[in-house]
Amino acid sequence: MTAADRTPVTVLGLGAMGSALAEAFLAAGHPTTVWNRTPGRAAPLAAKGARHAPTVREAVAAAPLVVTCLTTFEDTRRALEPAAHDLAGRALVTLNSGSPAGARAMAAWAAGNGARFLAGAVKNVPSAVGAPDTLLYYSGDRTVFDAHAADLRVLGGDTVHLGDEADLAALYEMAVGAMLLPALTGFFQGAAALQARGLQARTMVRFAGKWLDMISALLPVYAAEIDSGDYTDAASTVDLFRAGAAHDAELTAETGVDTAWAAPLNDLLERAAAAGHGGHSVSALTEVLRGPRAAA
Amino acid sequence: MTAADRTPVTVLGLGAMGSALAEAFLAAGHPTTVWNRTPGRAAPLAAKGARHAPTVREAVAAAPLVVTCLTTFEDTRRALEPAAHDLAGRALVTLNSGSPAGARAMAAWAAGNGARFLAGAVKNVPSAVGAPDTLLYYSGDRTVFDAHAADLRVLGGDTVHLGDEADLAALYEMAVGAMLLPALTGFFQGAAALQARGLQARTMVRFAGKWLDMISALLPVYAAEIDSGDYTDAASTVDLFRAGAAHDAELTAETGVDTAWAAPLNDLLERAAAAGHGGHSVSALTEVLRGPRAAA
Repeated sequence: MTAADRTPVTVLGLGAMGSALAEAFLAAGHPTTVWNRTPGRAAPLAAKGARHAPTVREAVAAAPLVVTCLTTFEDTRRALEPAAHDLAGRALVTLNSGSPAGARAMAAWAAGNGARFLAGAVKNVPSAVGAPDTLLYYSGDRTVFDAHAADLRVLGGDTVHLGDEADLAALYEMAVGAMLLPALTGFFQGAAALQARGLQARTMVRFAGKWLDMISALLPVYAAEIDSGDYTDAASTVDLFRAGAAHDAELTAETGVDTAWAAPLNDLLERAAAAGHGGHSVSALTEVLRGPRAAA
Repeated sequence: MTAADRTPVTVLGLGAMGSALAEAFLAAGHPTTVWNRTPGRAAPLAAKGARHAPTVREAVAAAPLVVTCLTTFEDTRRALEPAAHDLAGRALVTLNSGSPAGARAMAAWAAGNGARFLAGAVKNVPSAVGAPDTLLYYSGDRTVFDAHAADLRVLGGDTVHLGDEADLAALYEMAVGAMLLPALTGFFQGAAALQARGLQARTMVRFAGKWLDMISALLPVYAAEIDSGDYTDAASTVDLFRAGAAHDAELTAETGVDTAWAAPLNDLLERAAAAGHGGHSVSALTEVLRGPRAAA
């Protein structure tokens, strides 16, 4: 395939991630048009061969595949509003964070304007865009995904379609993303504890990495327990974690580090034990977290 | 080295982890003596060639290297009390969870009885014991570690001495371990959210694994920020995470899943922003978690 055969693409929104997306398209030889509300962000891309569209209408009109990378679905809709009548027949792919409800509203708006819509998420940092194992997942119109899978794979080799419902990517984004801040906060707490002893955070990085590898290896086991609802064959029980709950107070006493943020986790363990899960796998916390509406 | 050259070892405490340790020593050809408070746990190991000592005194007397795997330091001391006068000159290695203060008390007790002491931790699950990349770290008397490093490496190829202070392993254990329950709870919350939509937890495992890989890749960056105290070159700012805080309520509205446990994490972000870290790296949360005593 020569550059002339590449699908022309438009990228709207040139923050760190949007710029990385546009660069990946340029590097793969796609004729690439860019637009940003504050035009200064377009200059480095223009220097690499991107066409800088002065208005969002011209940007949308420039390509059959329009990829947006704005902060929210609301921002995206507001930015696209002047070009709403130019969207008909084009593939519109949003890559931003947002709720499933936001994705559904966006899908309805896109459909109302005749656009063929995918809502996606980049599961990585901007510097990883374009790498063979970088994951992006999309949900919405399968025919759009099939038509542009090769184009989208330019952004990351691990490109997945989750299903035809446009809100699935946002749902998975929330589901998978729920580990991030809690895991990082645990790391930061550990770093603060080491600093209290005059030790450097970098000395725990290798150990923390192996610990995350171990957690990763446990996830299929926990998922199988959760899917089956059978928590009885437990490698690590709720009671084992309850026994470790006292360590928070000990760490505070030892290092002065604030562990109060973790108290609700210990409360969840107590609620699981009260519900009869003490001897069950810690994955039974899923039963406590699941709301009455979901259980109904 | 023939089996006859292997250091005789004694393992006290035959729960899942203790049994795995004893099995690894047996598999490597070490003459292995085992003891457990409830003797039934010793039978499977005896069938594999372990000597089952009927009393803790006989167990300790059987080997120059005594490895304990009891639940707490208090349990360990209580179990060892009848054999306290048999410990002189032996290497005593504890592998249990506990606080730095507990490790210091254990070290003092061991020293008082003439034992040469290491406090360690197995950073993995019992089934990983003996694997080449399984991590165990130890702290305490370096000469004991050097004398028995080859023996201890039988339990996991990634065997590390953290320093001569006996409580360092417990400190690192708490520091590194602080990621576990928060990260898992995030995963369980995500699983509950998928179930609310009729989707299986297993469908997010691959994505969650890649997400943990990405978190792992970020840790050296965050550690460097924390060690330098310079949070200004931020890939992900406190404000970016604050913008995501609203997702918790949206997820609850969407799926009925209980996200209240994560509210204190959002409070930490607000405290960091109030302290002037809004535009700084999220690793600046370390500054908020660090207590006044540690900062003094």
